Amino acid sequence: MTDPKDRVAVIGIGQTKFGEQWDKSIRRITLTAAGACLVDAGVSGVDIDGLYVSNTSTSSFSKQEHQAALAADSGGLLPIASTEVEAACASGGVAVRHAYMAIKSGEHKVVMVVGCEKMSDISEREIAETLMSAADREWEGQIGATFPALFALLARRHMVHYGTTDEQLAAVPVKAHANAVNNPYAQFRFKIGIDQVLRSALVADPLRVFHCAPISDGAAALILCRGDLVEKFSGEPIWINASTQASDTLALHSRPHLTTFRAVKSAAKQAYAKAKVEPKDLDVIEIHDSFSIGEIIATEDIGLVEKGQGGPAIEEGYTAMDGEKPVNPSGGLKAKGHPVGATGIAQVGEIVEQLRHTAGERQIEGAQIGLALNLGGTGSTAVIHILNKE
Amino acid sequence: MTDPKDRVAVIGIGQTKFGEQWDKSIRRITLTAAGACLVDAGVSGVDIDGLYVSNTSTSSFSKQEHQAALAADSGGLLPIASTEVEAACASGGVAVRHAYMAIKSGEHKVVMVVGCEKMSDISEREIAETLMSAADREWEGQIGATFPALFALLARRHMVHYGTTDEQLAAVPVKAHANAVNNPYAQFRFKIGIDQVLRSALVADPLRVFHCAPISDGAAALILCRGDLVEKFSGEPIWINASTQASDTLALHSRPHLTTFRAVKSAAKQAYAKAKVEPKDLDVIEIHDSFSIGEIIATEDIGLVEKGQGGPAIEEGYTAMDGEKPVNPSGGLKAKGHPVGATGIAQVGEIVEQLRHTAGERQIEGAQIGLALNLGGTGSTAVIHILNKE
Repeated sequence: MTDPKDRVAVIGIGQTKFGEQWDKSIRRITLTAAGACLVDAGVSGVDIDGLYVSNTSTSSFSKQEHQAALAADSGGLLPIASTEVEAACASGGVAVRHAYMAIKSGEHKVVMVVGCEKMSDISEREIAETLMSAADREWEGQIGATFPALFALLARRHMVHYGTTDEQLAAVPVKAHANAVNNPYAQFRFKIGIDQVLRSALVADPLRVFHCAPISDGAAALILCRGDLVEKFSGEPIWINASTQASDTLALHSRPHLTTFRAVKSAAKQAYAKAKVEPKDLDVIEIHDSFSIGEIIATEDIGLVEKGQGGPAIEEGYTAMDGEKPVNPSGGLKAKGHPVGATGIAQVGEIVEQLRHTAGERQIEGAQIGLALNLGGTGSTAVIHILNKE
Repeated sequence: MTDPKDRVAVIGIGQTKFGEQWDKSIRRITLTAAGACLVDAGVSGVDIDGLYVSNTSTSSFSKQEHQAALAADSGGLLPIASTEVEAACASGGVAVRHAYMAIKSGEHKVVMVVGCEKMSDISEREIAETLMSAADREWEGQIGATFPALFALLARRHMVHYGTTDEQLAAVPVKAHANAVNNPYAQFRFKIGIDQVLRSALVADPLRVFHCAPISDGAAALILCRGDLVEKFSGEPIWINASTQASDTLALHSRPHLTTFRAVKSAAKQAYAKAKVEPKDLDVIEIHDSFSIGEIIATEDIGLVEKGQGGPAIEEGYTAMDGEKPVNPSGGLKAKGHPVGATGIAQVGEIVEQLRHTAGERQIEGAQIGLALNLGGTGSTAVIHILNKE
């Protein structure tokens, strides 16, 4: 049994509703999530000795860098050590991992991680330009390949190689929307059908508008705590048994295969070894479904199903709420929303809620072990957390 | 005695010459520093299991985010965990600290840190705009307060309050240039005199052009290694005995005093406690002198001299090469150059070289203990490393 002093637990979670929040500033949104998190953890500001900040677009939109110090100030946490990490859509997961390592290193005891994004009040052109900067500017951005186009290439290749169908792809957002109905924080709380997806506007063949995660505002926060100190606080601890990260090329043309996320496979292999679990042990999974094909490929790469079986698995309900391996009970990025900097943090928050057995209508009964996969770019950064009730 | 397994050493250093490098791409510059570092450490790419990247301006200038994965790819290190941190001019120091914590956490064994910047081929207006994004955009940037203007406010206040003189301020770049003569990597390897500084163009009263660090291209790299593994590699280990970080407000108007960097005081206090040393024990110091007044204030805040005595101390040679407490033997940011992302990494590199006793003409004889202070914004982020030969 590992000494509690060498373990790290999540003791607090908080988030705002994801969606359009025209009437609130990014600072207000961030403080709302952070405040909810403090209350949930039973922690006060003076207990926090480290801060991690995840945000992708504010530096571009508001020309405001140095957001870690700014967040420490606006949160009343000075002179705390405060750090911003950047890894595109995986920034949130990377921030969680660095809070985890900061505690494991012995340098910190109680660390807050907060991620936020305010995207609705920015022009779509600016959004596209900013998001594209996470792909290879020289080889992909310059020729106008946006992320929907890049993920469409992956989808087409997966269809050709494994026979994945339009209906299977469509099953991803259908499941996401069905799950989000029970998530009070989700952006889209309504069901959709396969036909509706197949009839929706084409964005980049074969991806349609319902295959793409939306533009969202929102924030999410976590508090991580050294294992031997969790009893000082009231938040129920959920243990991080693995926190791993891996990288792949930015440009798709440099990869040997388009149907596998190598970074996901690498991070997953390390995570299972560290947590001493196998895919079959997972009770609940949050997967980065910025585009439907991403969920299908990642389902395979984390070993829930054999390579090429991601399409049939979702179509047959294997990853549905009542399936063998429920994926994205939160509604995923597609239906819960995707405020980029907050996404990886909210994924871990959902797993914590599930393992605490406080997820209400969307609770996976008896969940003990969960996994969150956060992806940056077209799989260029992958971060995996495995959490355990014990 | 601490178990070597619980300690972290710097086993490799590498950097390019700082200055104008019109003929080299940022990727080439970065790989040159990283390659030199691998050779110095006697480490090959397969030994590296973590990468940290520090860069400030490329995301603005080239619209290329996600640089950590890109660097892992171009360095042939995939699928390594690769992370970019951002803390304005303190990004390099924050990256070193996170490599240190990554090893102390038990998650990594041998980690490379690399920082780079390519600024000469960008318009001065773009440079100013980008650097300003590290101050408070809403309260400072909007009214046109650039960093020279903000540091000028600090300088004027220090003069009014402590009687610091124009001649004392001028002594900072005079010392920097004198020291840089002996640094083959430095941007400006020529001496200047007090009169020359006082006659130079006024930038923001009382700061003149010689008070301001230049625009530079360059890269610097370090390899950090878990203590029990250093004997596997040929690079002489220099031990990190403390790595601390603290924050302050971005906007100057929110601070109780303009003559103290609170983040520096906080980081220094923590660092001395961790390393079990006092300011009097330091043999060599690298201080962030982006503007002359920054060195004077920081000299006081890290406890080398009493508050208000930074001016007389430099004037009397207390911090000169042959003084009691040599500060910036490298030439500092002013004369060595200030390629932002590389700066904090190169500072630690200089301390390592001094403690290895391989600094040639600029060697501080018998140096055993050194401190590096990296600053972001007008002191909004401070990172301190204390290194020891033993």
